[in-house]
Amino acid sequence: MNNWGTLYRMTIFGESHGPEIGVVIDGCKPGIPLHENDFLQDLKRRQPGAEGTTPRIEKDHPEIVSGLFNGFTTGAPLTIVFENSNIRSKDYTPILKQPRPGHADWVAMKKYDGYNDYRGGGHFSGRLTLALVAAGVIAKKMIRPIQVSAQLIEAGGRKNISQAIQKAIAQKDSIGGIVECIASPMPVGLGEPFFDSLESKISHLVFAIPATKGVEFGSGFKSAGMYGSEHNDSVIDENGTTKTNHAGGINGGISNGNDLVFRVAVKPTSSIAQSQKTFNTETGKVEELLVQGRHDTCIALRVPVVVEAITAIALADLILISNSGQSAYSAVQK
Amino acid sequence: MNNWGTLYRMTIFGESHGPEIGVVIDGCKPGIPLHENDFLQDLKRRQPGAEGTTPRIEKDHPEIVSGLFNGFTTGAPLTIVFENSNIRSKDYTPILKQPRPGHADWVAMKKYDGYNDYRGGGHFSGRLTLALVAAGVIAKKMIRPIQVSAQLIEAGGRKNISQAIQKAIAQKDSIGGIVECIASPMPVGLGEPFFDSLESKISHLVFAIPATKGVEFGSGFKSAGMYGSEHNDSVIDENGTTKTNHAGGINGGISNGNDLVFRVAVKPTSSIAQSQKTFNTETGKVEELLVQGRHDTCIALRVPVVVEAITAIALADLILISNSGQSAYSAVQK
Amino acid sequence: MNNWGTLYRMTIFGESHGPEIGVVIDGCKPGIPLHENDFLQDLKRRQPGAEGTTPRIEKDHPEIVSGLFNGFTTGAPLTIVFENSNIRSKDYTPILKQPRPGHADWVAMKKYDGYNDYRGGGHFSGRLTLALVAAGVIAKKMIRPIQVSAQLIEAGGRKNISQAIQKAIAQKDSIGGIVECIASPMPVGLGEPFFDSLESKISHLVFAIPATKGVEFGSGFKSAGMYGSEHNDSVIDENGTTKTNHAGGINGGISNGNDLVFRVAVKPTSSIAQSQKTFNTETGKVEELLVQGRHDTCIALRVPVVVEAITAIALADLILISNSGQSAYSAVQK
Amino acid sequence: MNNWGTLYRMTIFGESHGPEIGVVIDGCKPGIPLHENDFLQDLKRRQPGAEGTTPRIEKDHPEIVSGLFNGFTTGAPLTIVFENSNIRSKDYTPILKQPRPGHADWVAMKKYDGYNDYRGGGHFSGRLTLALVAAGVIAKKMIRPIQVSAQLIEAGGRKNISQAIQKAIAQKDSIGGIVECIASPMPVGLGEPFFDSLESKISHLVFAIPATKGVEFGSGFKSAGMYGSEHNDSVIDENGTTKTNHAGGINGGISNGNDLVFRVAVKPTSSIAQSQKTFNTETGKVEELLVQGRHDTCIALRVPVVVEAITAIALADLILISNSGQSAYSAVQK
Repeated sequence: MNNWGTLYRMTIFGESHGPEIGVVIDGCKPGIPLHENDFLQDLKRRQPGAEGTTPRIEKDHPEIVSGLFNGFTTGAPLTIVFENSNIRSKDYTPILKQPRPGHADWVAMKKYDGYNDYRGGGHFSGRLTLALVAAGVIAKKMIRPIQVSAQLIEAGGRKNISQAIQKAIAQKDSIGGIVECIASPMPVGLGEPFFDSLESKISHLVFAIPATKGVEFGSGFKSAGMYGSEHNDSVIDENGTTKTNHAGGINGGISNGNDLVFRVAVKPTSSIAQSQKTFNTETGKVEELLVQGRHDTCIALRVPVVVEAITAIALADLILISNSGQSAYSAVQK
Repeated sequence: MNNWGTLYRMTIFGESHGPEIGVVIDGCKPGIPLHENDFLQDLKRRQPGAEGTTPRIEKDHPEIVSGLFNGFTTGAPLTIVFENSNIRSKDYTPILKQPRPGHADWVAMKKYDGYNDYRGGGHFSGRLTLALVAAGVIAKKMIRPIQVSAQLIEAGGRKNISQAIQKAIAQKDSIGGIVECIASPMPVGLGEPFFDSLESKISHLVFAIPATKGVEFGSGFKSAGMYGSEHNDSVIDENGTTKTNHAGGINGGISNGNDLVFRVAVKPTSSIAQSQKTFNTETGKVEELLVQGRHDTCIALRVPVVVEAITAIALADLILISNSGQSAYSAVQK
Repeated sequence: MNNWGTLYRMTIFGESHGPEIGVVIDGCKPGIPLHENDFLQDLKRRQPGAEGTTPRIEKDHPEIVSGLFNGFTTGAPLTIVFENSNIRSKDYTPILKQPRPGHADWVAMKKYDGYNDYRGGGHFSGRLTLALVAAGVIAKKMIRPIQVSAQLIEAGGRKNISQAIQKAIAQKDSIGGIVECIASPMPVGLGEPFFDSLESKISHLVFAIPATKGVEFGSGFKSAGMYGSEHNDSVIDENGTTKTNHAGGINGGISNGNDLVFRVAVKPTSSIAQSQKTFNTETGKVEELLVQGRHDTCIALRVPVVVEAITAIALADLILISNSGQSAYSAVQK
Repeated sequence: MNNWGTLYRMTIFGESHGPEIGVVIDGCKPGIPLHENDFLQDLKRRQPGAEGTTPRIEKDHPEIVSGLFNGFTTGAPLTIVFENSNIRSKDYTPILKQPRPGHADWVAMKKYDGYNDYRGGGHFSGRLTLALVAAGVIAKKMIRPIQVSAQLIEAGGRKNISQAIQKAIAQKDSIGGIVECIASPMPVGLGEPFFDSLESKISHLVFAIPATKGVEFGSGFKSAGMYGSEHNDSVIDENGTTKTNHAGGINGGISNGNDLVFRVAVKPTSSIAQSQKTFNTETGKVEELLVQGRHDTCIALRVPVVVEAITAIALADLILISNSGQSAYSAVQK
């Protein structure tokens, strides 16, 4: 199930240590100006390099191999690929004997009968989010003038993110974080009940991002502890503007024109620089394991741009669906 | 978008004040023994009647109008309908002038150009969860021996749920709550990355339930404040049993055989027994509104059985996909 | 797989001898005026009664049980049901021992492990086309001003249809026929390559109609014997009007603005009034079988209105898709 | 809509004169041995070179860029790409002024607002069938022991194909043809009524192949002229073997275990070596046009391997669905 979307459809492929990672985007409008440079800013935000991120740095150069002609999208599938270059050749077979805690090693082995590419997480690698970010760049163009902006608002349980990271590095440990995303200005009417509510579309994609463990809209889990009189957002004008925004810009699964606001919980990076105890299938005992490789102390640092991407993708799909029902015939005559 | 599912597909229809609510279930295996009585227990759990729930009580008698023959499912679409009987005839047009805060009245009017059935919430009514519960009853039979169990673990921010409700009733207010759901015993291998992870499938359906504002798996939002050394679940045997279950039974979007655990945040009921200030489109001013009708003080009380239903539905779909042989691991022992 | 469609989605349910046949239509625009009488003309064309059709006559009264409010569609799923009333109670178990040649009895038994409702063909009955015709009535409203018109142009290999039928009745036999369908005026641009070409969408639905064995567009099978110089349609004006229409109004899977023309081959009714030789699973021998019941001599007589319906449905879906891509944002602001 | 399939899903991309053509196959079982050489035989059958085919010869080397590890499929998406190397640089802009009769030039320009890549047919090029053939090679491995075999049985209206081609070449014209496809041995039970009948799945894909104008199953259009007593296939044993096979191996949309037989009508190549009259949008007049380039006299010669591919793909998808347990009959012995 590596396809997603009703009208704005993406298909992703690739493995961490295979030749390339890519995404095919179907349903992209024709006539959108596009250049490989348009991807650089978001790709850079996803890249490591900052304190708390892995030293594995790829150049991540996007190559557009279909769907572009004379600098504009054509309406045919747009394919963007990224070569995997900075791959460390090493022996990954120990993973088979002693699967790494928190990783997908073991379930993947079971599910794919041992045929999965386990090197560097294979198709489960966070590196696949490159494809999401690339699809997000196109989606951001499709949803204009809506702007999507996400940031890490908390790490390791603190607002002082830099300090939390330094402490974790010192402890040879990793930490998680919370990403908040806002989309604005929002049109009224996005979301297709009963099953494709705005929250359903977004949350579906949130949980395609590795390491996410929760999502909440508006006041989210805090809502559960509020009174109705407190939580209900009073409408103050004919545009549906509300005094508060506990709903996060959504009623009945449909955008109400106020800012879309949601938060995503990201767990601590599973790979840590200290030894862990876990089962060794060869010896049949729980034994120490020191996970090798280059890791992020706080993978959540690199998640905001991915959350922005999936939000733009969800909105692009819903906008196309919403547009479709406006008039059944006139729009076809060009 | 009133269809959901890849192989276990459901389609729901109906409005709060229309002739009937129903669900068509496609992809139900043939040969499942089924009787209308099989629905009664779960339907009863969804019904109001208890303290903190609305006094609108329907008999909610399920009528199976297709897909059943000689007491067994046939493999053809199974259709279950519920007549709407206890409808209070009253004038709902005030909703058009002064949309109720927290409800879908205003967005529905905008989205459907004023043609939506606004009586009692129409197609957005919580009454539609009847269809989900019915589809869940079938799904629960399909996923055996997995048992799904959900309960309200907190209301109005407290563990003492009854007290919280009494306080809210006294204040003419409403409260929300948190529902926890556990599925066990889980097979290994359910979930179809990249886009149909186990979390994606469940969260998609969670947000089809009216009034939900958040979902978290395993330690969820708490994960974001934990260290990796603390959060990683050590595997202790060859079956993948883990010492802790911070992951909620899922790695890389795939079930790992440990209990599936997640929680859902439910907002306070939007309709409250006290007056609220909100915009009146006729006068162009913010004015007092007293929402008429019979309401639940704590709608979260009725949500657990709905959460169980959507969980069983998500699992049924993933089990069928898993069985197909697309992934080699025959995960579910029957 | 009883759902069809990307944006105009229908779900059908019911069995020949069950309580009711129905269809849920999702993606219907809000604001379409609709009355149960709107279905009568097309339902009547599907009904038997004429020479060459079965004497089983149902009143086929459509009941709209959701999605309609104050005489207009609401945008929520529209559900139309038909009660099965004129059911002859008889013993259908002989079908299990000696499956009727040409029918789905045997494959259904195998596929559904003996749990299928075999009475009157069950879910495979031609009676299910009632649901298609009903969905077609709505679709015809959605695709205006396109008009779809189908007729039987040949039966039993002859243009003189009445004579062919009389001859078949006299011989206690059945005959097939060819239905031609034309849609006009067609907009330019309907069809979504690579996989949802206009022909793909239509042919997919053509083969959902029981008894169809072939479909051809424009000159169809005759094209295979023509020269390119003869087959190519010369464009004669800026609207794309062509001098001839060998292409049937489609190039590259997309409507070109000329009339859409296609033909459907319908096999002779499988049930005939004379004895046939076929395998008896009880005796293990090939034996005589006289199929009981009321049959159509030429089922093809009742197919044109069904072909019109599926054509309108395919066009409605493609029109909605086509509309979606016009402008990504403006249409949402109402 | 460049995705197809429920469980065996393919996504195709690329243009005739772009950097590459490719296909992503999702739902491929893990553990299938696969080597780039496995594609060569079918790719060669699709290639031109023979009398009556275009002299544009590409090496068509398949490169597997994801989903393969240690020589076996992994269960992750399998991506196969083909570099476009033998591209003739020339000026294609005349197409914009005087669209070629029979081609998609004009509809594509209208549908994609002039942004489509019109060089060599762009995304509408027959070259895209490379992707189908590649996906078919995998599908053929998935459906074993079923063998699919297609051949050209008629060209230009004659059984003597070579003569018909020579005559067309001499006349600077093109011809069409009829391709017959047989799949055997077929399991009982493939096909998912109501909407995913075996014929629906196959015909949907048949019309994704450029130049196809018709499809018929079993006796097809001849059925329409037959008597029921003649057309019904008598069952002669407990395996459902029939004496004749007018049904083409399908009853009620489901395979009956007899050979699957169908035929596809292919129109004459649209590009011909003689001058044609058609509208010139620049001059506003119908004028002579001589289509430049290297063309097939009989494109139908290259279609059989593509028909085999889409048949194997349709069967693979239906086999996976059938295996899922949705329908109880375990149809395919592995």
